[in-house]
Amino acid sequence: MSEPAPRQLHLNLFIYPGGHHEAAWRHPDTPRDRLLDLGFYQDLARRAEDAAFDAVFLADGPSLAANVRYASRFRLEPFTFLSGLAAVTERIGLVATASTTYTEPYNLARLFASLDHLSGGRAGWNIVTTGDPGAAANFGLDSHPVHAERYARAHEFVDVVTALWDSWEDGALVADPGTGVFADTDLIHPIGHSGEHFDVAGPLNVPRSPQGRPVYVQAGSSQDGRAFAARHAEAVFTAHQTLADAQAFYTDIRERARALGRDPDHVKVLPGISPFVGSTEREARELEERFNALTQPEYSLGQLERMTGLDLAGHDLDAPFPAHLIGPEQRADARSRLQVVLGIVDRERPTLRGLLHRLAGARGHHVLAGTPERIADTIQTWFEQGAADGFNVMPPHLPGGFDAFVDHVVPLLRDRGLFREKYTGTTLREHYGLPRPDSGSAPPVAQDRAILGHVHP
Amino acid sequence: MSEPAPRQLHLNLFIYPGGHHEAAWRHPDTPRDRLLDLGFYQDLARRAEDAAFDAVFLADGPSLAANVRYASRFRLEPFTFLSGLAAVTERIGLVATASTTYTEPYNLARLFASLDHLSGGRAGWNIVTTGDPGAAANFGLDSHPVHAERYARAHEFVDVVTALWDSWEDGALVADPGTGVFADTDLIHPIGHSGEHFDVAGPLNVPRSPQGRPVYVQAGSSQDGRAFAARHAEAVFTAHQTLADAQAFYTDIRERARALGRDPDHVKVLPGISPFVGSTEREARELEERFNALTQPEYSLGQLERMTGLDLAGHDLDAPFPAHLIGPEQRADARSRLQVVLGIVDRERPTLRGLLHRLAGARGHHVLAGTPERIADTIQTWFEQGAADGFNVMPPHLPGGFDAFVDHVVPLLRDRGLFREKYTGTTLREHYGLPRPDSGSAPPVAQDRAILGHVHP
Repeated sequence: MSEPAPRQLHLNLFIYPGGHHEAAWRHPDTPRDRLLDLGFYQDLARRAEDAAFDAVFLADGPSLAANVRYASRFRLEPFTFLSGLAAVTERIGLVATASTTYTEPYNLARLFASLDHLSGGRAGWNIVTTGDPGAAANFGLDSHPVHAERYARAHEFVDVVTALWDSWEDGALVADPGTGVFADTDLIHPIGHSGEHFDVAGPLNVPRSPQGRPVYVQAGSSQDGRAFAARHAEAVFTAHQTLADAQAFYTDIRERARALGRDPDHVKVLPGISPFVGSTEREARELEERFNALTQPEYSLGQLERMTGLDLAGHDLDAPFPAHLIGPEQRADARSRLQVVLGIVDRERPTLRGLLHRLAGARGHHVLAGTPERIADTIQTWFEQGAADGFNVMPPHLPGGFDAFVDHVVPLLRDRGLFREKYTGTTLREHYGLPRPDSGSAPPVAQDRAILGHVHP
Repeated sequence: MSEPAPRQLHLNLFIYPGGHHEAAWRHPDTPRDRLLDLGFYQDLARRAEDAAFDAVFLADGPSLAANVRYASRFRLEPFTFLSGLAAVTERIGLVATASTTYTEPYNLARLFASLDHLSGGRAGWNIVTTGDPGAAANFGLDSHPVHAERYARAHEFVDVVTALWDSWEDGALVADPGTGVFADTDLIHPIGHSGEHFDVAGPLNVPRSPQGRPVYVQAGSSQDGRAFAARHAEAVFTAHQTLADAQAFYTDIRERARALGRDPDHVKVLPGISPFVGSTEREARELEERFNALTQPEYSLGQLERMTGLDLAGHDLDAPFPAHLIGPEQRADARSRLQVVLGIVDRERPTLRGLLHRLAGARGHHVLAGTPERIADTIQTWFEQGAADGFNVMPPHLPGGFDAFVDHVVPLLRDRGLFREKYTGTTLREHYGLPRPDSGSAPPVAQDRAILGHVHP
């Protein structure tokens, strides 16, 4: 018997046009003319695959960001985008954000089943309820559904698409030229879902995919979000500024999953990290400062206002951030990004400009400017001290910020035995160490008209 | 001045898993194990691109076909599928079927805008209202909306997505690092659509794509369908068995477009043709017969019943088709596929089995078994005698049926000066000879909160 393999880090490349830093697009090294060019992102995906990353990830939302005037905040559609990456890669996972509030379950189930087929089992679904209230007006709604209502719909949505993905049992596609049976319809089941938000008959019109279902990912850290993650998520994307906060979250998510009878090791917690890599601490800080010098208060203030609910017009950028404007009821608000802002304010007492710079790199995710050794140390500490199973790597600028991480940080992680040299599996489930779900044992619905229609015996 | 280029054929490869013949999957040469393999379809798309075809096309519908037991009637989702083909091709167009009844305009507009960006301007949209009544139950509807209601929604749907595609003017993406302006929001306009079926604020969150809008394609031949095509379509896919029927349709569509003030040359009429290619007429007929011998009445009868509304259970397959069961009110039904069936019955007086075989190749499209010369003759006649601007090539089996067409028929078409040797443009609009639409001249909506949000001057 060989030794059990040591626990390994999981690393995703979180792709943002030009990079995560809000001013990345203004930097001379950023290829501004390639931000709508599939080839640019294919090069990044190949680079991530060469480095044996678990996945690439694309965020999404169905509305135009208010601040596109000042930053590259358009949004290419994730399924087309990731399919274009799937075609030129072979192993790396492909995680698409998709909304349970603004899509139909049957359509979404097909998109993921097809992506999983076309990629040979590499699809992951970042399940979001959509936070941007501006989306409602693009879908005929007078107002964005409230948080709890969105989560209620999300739970039912996940149940529906799960049933659709399981509606073809694994052996249903027979294709036996001798008998003339292409699909064994005894193994294809209508789902007959009738619920509060959805009525969906099924079955899906796509055979069960290599992974059975995409990997379920979740990124909300509110109480509703944590409950959702505990029930459904196999990977959790999250934002923390300190080891202690990340440890508390990590413990909480695992406890919640365990309480629901799930194996907590099947819920991978992956905080974001946005690394500025320098050969010295000073070089790294200067690199970050060069990007921060390109920020525009018109953009940064709008973002901070959305995070805090404050009107900051007219405030002196170089005076202390007016923390007293945040009242007790706001401090009690569980929205994670507000808590991140309050944590920075309480710990660091920054000026308004200083706070804007702290948030410019990755919208509240952990920005870390340092030498490769220090970045690897932080990753190792969080990984080994109960704060993370891996990280969403959010390069502040692309491609250079990712190249620096792959060239200088990843080798250290490998030297320390923390990250794979090469893939050991072919599917995203295998990369994450997750089981392939069974298609269940729904009873055969023989001769159901929904399947067999006009068939004659 | 050079001579104006002679009018050229347009040829699409209409992809169906395994081929269009209903029994293609049972033939020993069909790679049954590759029908869910992206690489199989990438090989086909590359082959079509090497032959300078205008486009590949994928049909679609959001429900499982009743007859998947007997034929390869699953449906991979078109946007993921075509994005996977876009990534390995450079010139060929990519036409996706998408439903106006079962999608949301904002989501669909994003999918096409992204596909058009990622492919460098090669997207086409086959606009369907979805004919299969089984789809309704997958979307919470008690019943499939009636034909006229579906078309009313479709007209409004097209208006909405057109406005979304035009919501970024062409010059809006500035990305000027000096001024810090990424997008000129004076050139990005909310659409503010409020109608019978949709309320959509806009703007889209994707910059205007290389073609401005995808090529609009339409495939319904009912009266509603023809009216829709005349107003919106830039290419029309259609099914005809005879030159006379195709000529009448061709003339009608062009007249309708002209009556609406459109240039009829900007509506390309492309009938389907399913060629069995043989080195002699006899070899071609024997090839077709080998496929017909693999058909299963359980499948074929169900399909014919759906086309005709008849219950054919218990009828002798080798007796004449019971045409008398089709009453006068059904004969007056304008649905094109029923008219195709009636045409065959009236002209050929087939047995029931004979009719099933006539429909097995391509579901009512024109099946033509013959030598390359005879197939090229038919194409030339239809093209030159006012019946077609080109064809949807529907290989009865894949890849062999397509290889035979490319290797033996396409060279004849080139020898006759009817089909390009190589591409002269890069976008699907250029292949089809269609203008790139202007983004319009919507008035700037300065300082609109929907765009500019929390921006400070």
